[in-house]
Amino acid sequence: MSTVSLQNDPEQDPRVKAVFDDIRATRKTDFINNMWRYLAFDASLLESTWAEVKRVMAMPSSLDPLTKEMLYITASIINGCSYCVHSHTAAATAKGMTGEQYAELLSIVALASKTNQLATALQVPVDSAFDLSTLART
Amino acid sequence: MSTVSLQNDPEQDPRVKAVFDDIRATRKTDFINNMWRYLAFDASLLESTWAEVKRVMAMPSSLDPLTKEMLYITASIINGCSYCVHSHTAAATAKGMTGEQYAELLSIVALASKTNQLATALQVPVDSAFDLSTLART
Amino acid sequence: MSTVSLQNDPEQDPRVKAVFDDIRATRKTDFINNMWRYLAFDASLLESTWAEVKRVMAMPSSLDPLTKEMLYITASIINGCSYCVHSHTAAATAKGMTGEQYAELLSIVALASKTNQLATALQVPVDSAFDLSTLART
Amino acid sequence: MSTVSLQNDPEQDPRVKAVFDDIRATRKTDFINNMWRYLAFDASLLESTWAEVKRVMAMPSSLDPLTKEMLYITASIINGCSYCVHSHTAAATAKGMTGEQYAELLSIVALASKTNQLATALQVPVDSAFDLSTLART
Amino acid sequence: MSTVSLQNDPEQDPRVKAVFDDIRATRKTDFINNMWRYLAFDASLLESTWAEVKRVMAMPSSLDPLTKEMLYITASIINGCSYCVHSHTAAATAKGMTGEQYAELLSIVALASKTNQLATALQVPVDSAFDLSTLART
Amino acid sequence: MSTVSLQNDPEQDPRVKAVFDDIRATRKTDFINNMWRYLAFDASLLESTWAEVKRVMAMPSSLDPLTKEMLYITASIINGCSYCVHSHTAAATAKGMTGEQYAELLSIVALASKTNQLATALQVPVDSAFDLSTLART
Repeated sequence: MSTVSLQNDPEQDPRVKAVFDDIRATRKTDFINNMWRYLAFDASLLESTWAEVKRVMAMPSSLDPLTKEMLYITASIINGCSYCVHSHTAAATAKGMTGEQYAELLSIVALASKTNQLATALQVPVDSAFDLSTLART
Repeated sequence: MSTVSLQNDPEQDPRVKAVFDDIRATRKTDFINNMWRYLAFDASLLESTWAEVKRVMAMPSSLDPLTKEMLYITASIINGCSYCVHSHTAAATAKGMTGEQYAELLSIVALASKTNQLATALQVPVDSAFDLSTLART
Repeated sequence: MSTVSLQNDPEQDPRVKAVFDDIRATRKTDFINNMWRYLAFDASLLESTWAEVKRVMAMPSSLDPLTKEMLYITASIINGCSYCVHSHTAAATAKGMTGEQYAELLSIVALASKTNQLATALQVPVDSAFDLSTLART
Repeated sequence: MSTVSLQNDPEQDPRVKAVFDDIRATRKTDFINNMWRYLAFDASLLESTWAEVKRVMAMPSSLDPLTKEMLYITASIINGCSYCVHSHTAAATAKGMTGEQYAELLSIVALASKTNQLATALQVPVDSAFDLSTLART
Repeated sequence: MSTVSLQNDPEQDPRVKAVFDDIRATRKTDFINNMWRYLAFDASLLESTWAEVKRVMAMPSSLDPLTKEMLYITASIINGCSYCVHSHTAAATAKGMTGEQYAELLSIVALASKTNQLATALQVPVDSAFDLSTLART
Repeated sequence: MSTVSLQNDPEQDPRVKAVFDDIRATRKTDFINNMWRYLAFDASLLESTWAEVKRVMAMPSSLDPLTKEMLYITASIINGCSYCVHSHTAAATAKGMTGEQYAELLSIVALASKTNQLATALQVPVDSAFDLSTLART
């Protein structure tokens, strides 16, 4: 059950086909997961979303691919997105995340959620030492 | 303004002093940030919180210290904890996070929050390929 | 599976029957969706919730009915309520929301969630130009 | 206090200047609000964020500009972004949102947040009538 | 700084005055906190909000007043409402919440937030033993 | 479907067996719910999570067991954890929560979520009367 219909052959639309082809080429697999199949209900939304995912996640960058997936899992857990928790935990596992690393990621998410709520509850004032506004980062 | 009072000399309580001493020794600094000063209103809560932070964040593990701080920042942003966003961005910066890495972290948090909401809005069904329940992780 | 039991014939309770009758009359349909059937476990909670939904959503007002449903969908997505995402997307569709409008709503929710997290991450100070406290609204 | 430094003259960077110029031209004002000034710490992040805001919010579309701002306010409230609540309430007001419309928006956000939590608490199963997956939208 | 203006003498409006009078009488104090002063920008929203607060919080019920305030604090922390965390922690303290009880409330909120995220991360299936849909509550 | 595999006989690991034995002894039942069975994928995470649940929830304290479960339910609803909503509503019911108390808990969660969003939307400034930082709690 979804809020949009899944079309039988979405690639009849050449814009959808172009995105699906690029997903297959970028990921080196024939598998197109449901997120893209459902987003295909609107070609513009599909195109802009995939372009951003490709740019941010698939391009070489200052963070390694596994770290990026672990950041994505963390955001997905706290945003409460069941689909995304599944898809990005699978992606991180495919990129080599070990059980030990996964357990450690969970320990950090659990601890952060705990201290996040404690700081909000206590309304702790921010230390002036944490002001980075005059910092020159490299 | 806070929901608890900040005591003038919290280290008069030997349990508080023991925790503060361990923070200083573990972090190799005299600086005790406000989170611990306010949690000191209850010695048990202070002790258990610090013990967990030390175990999860300060001990050698399968993830490097900077990656751990970046996961902590991500959780703190999405949980909306202003104090924690400040303290852990400062911690990550102290551990060497470059401006480029920080911008990339933000790009991932922003992208994840976008696709998390899209998947929730569309109520995308989870692909069976993402089922990890029969996976033997290393 | 739910946290309350769904009764076979909730309208045996005259208070429940009165609310269900008003839902049918207001909406001009015999269909009572599950939200009301489950809330019927407590007649007072059912009465007060329906009274507010009727007052806010079903009465003529300064916003048109479709805009109101689109605001409701937006809140439901970000609050992560699967049931409400389904029910209010269906309601908006019944009130004429086109696929193009739905895709645009999703684009705004996605963009807002992205910039919301960026502003929280950066802890951007509020511009004084945004102070509406001295504004006399019409 | 922020997690990045606000540069004295960010427009010395031609990429930043190009974005700021486009903001001024698109909005027909010399005012550049803080969100853009802080995002300028990373030219790529600034460029991609502004490009998306311009495309989604400033282009003619199937929703009118005020409705779009009201959807943005709703997302910002529930995501808990103080900066965004201020900036988009100001933007909606500039686009003609009356006090009556604002109060009604608040009534819907308040009601939705209430029923969202009730449906989550009761774990109400989704009615099959809400399945839109076989719907052909116009 | 707020998104609505605070009027100098809101009680010139007889509807606002009636609500403020009832707040003073119900709470047996002359103090009207800011929440009501700002909600007064719209008399209908003020009336309906106060009526619900009075009905839910100020009337005799199956839960004692302190427990009710502690539930309110818990919701306010996790919803990330700084104002509400302050106002309801103050209210609970005025109703006798001890430091020990407050620390215990915080321990539960912290623990729940931790296990909530763990269950979401692991996508733990619900045990059939937790199905309350056939339960006849007293 | 989960992100970790459920092992056939997790108690072959003596650390897992020790935790499961302690759960059975503490709760005086043979039933081990899924949360613990899935957390068993990592013995350390299982041990530390159970130790905290036992310390916070199962030990005599300044709050009675039912109140503690009701606070846990409240946090779980707002954190959007479906599993936890089910498990802790079942636990509270087993500890004697009546239908009337449950309906009242829901009324408070619903009201708090409403006023939390209103205060965030209006950006109501905190009254100085709510400053507890100079308060000496008992």
